[in-house]
Amino acid sequence: MSGYSVAPLDNLIEKFESLPGIGKKTAQRLSYYVLTLPKDRAEAFSRAILEAHEKIRYCKVCRNLTDSDLCGVCKDDSREKSVICVVEDTKDVVALEKIGEFNALYHVLHGSLSPLNGIGPDQLYIKELLARINKGNISEVIMATNPTVEGEATAMYISKLIKPLNIKVTRLAYGIPVGADLEYADEITLSRALIGRSEM
Amino acid sequence: MSGYSVAPLDNLIEKFESLPGIGKKTAQRLSYYVLTLPKDRAEAFSRAILEAHEKIRYCKVCRNLTDSDLCGVCKDDSREKSVICVVEDTKDVVALEKIGEFNALYHVLHGSLSPLNGIGPDQLYIKELLARINKGNISEVIMATNPTVEGEATAMYISKLIKPLNIKVTRLAYGIPVGADLEYADEITLSRALIGRSEM
Repeated sequence: MSGYSVAPLDNLIEKFESLPGIGKKTAQRLSYYVLTLPKDRAEAFSRAILEAHEKIRYCKVCRNLTDSDLCGVCKDDSREKSVICVVEDTKDVVALEKIGEFNALYHVLHGSLSPLNGIGPDQLYIKELLARINKGNISEVIMATNPTVEGEATAMYISKLIKPLNIKVTRLAYGIPVGADLEYADEITLSRALIGRSEM
Repeated sequence: MSGYSVAPLDNLIEKFESLPGIGKKTAQRLSYYVLTLPKDRAEAFSRAILEAHEKIRYCKVCRNLTDSDLCGVCKDDSREKSVICVVEDTKDVVALEKIGEFNALYHVLHGSLSPLNGIGPDQLYIKELLARINKGNISEVIMATNPTVEGEATAMYISKLIKPLNIKVTRLAYGIPVGADLEYADEITLSRALIGRSEM
């Protein structure tokens, strides 16, 4: 910016710039755009940030996002209560709900085991998952953590805790993504797809 | 989103999505990020939007952005007061100030003539420019509107109004951008660069 900066504008640009994936130029563009908004829309935007931040919390049961005690999934009586799908992040719940085929419950860990980053079992909602399982009536736990080293380790760690309780633990299938080109699949994925092949 | 949407979150996503160049996925990512912010930073972001919108207005003299009556440029006594550089947008002032070589005043039109979009001379700050010039002591007006059809037309229109007042009107030079490849310059730019050639 020039030596003649306008403090409230610079401040807004700086705020936008602090968001992930937003660079200086985009922050500038967004800030100038906000200045052109009608007063009520600028106020609504400002309020939306505060309200989202104040009202949204974790579901008491599954740690999904909600604005009340229980999230929409846990509140829904029509869902299968004996299967829990364990995910790393609330965004994973959104992704799984989008396919519209999973009709049971979730448990959000809010991260994955990563000792190098100081994230051990106590930093994740693993205790809470075990407490849910210990209450009984759970027949299957589906590990849907990411197919990364950390996600794998987390799935492995949790499954070792659950298996002794005589509960079925499953893992999402690995394989080639639908619509992808075999030629471009990496070797590990291809090898997993081969191992997991099914009869036609 | 799933059928179990969280209203304050959806609202925030929608607000981000209404910003230019921000799609659904980015809006989601930004919203989730805002949720993870510490309370004071979320509040500061929310406040920055309100304050920028409330405090920023147009400079009484040149219509640049400011949070007081006069903008930084107009307030600065060290600047040459007899030359006015006419630009379309406040962002152009930022761009010109960045080179650090222009030491006179600006006038921001806030747009360019575009009859098809219903923007005529009365929708721009042209009257205000003429009033500044009529107060006297102006020796040169530099037309720095964009090198587009609209910017050209605007520059032409204004210069026709000012020339009879016996004031020098100049236009930014056209030519090949520094660092660009001749091969990729478009024909009109190249033709202008040829016309405007200077002795070495």
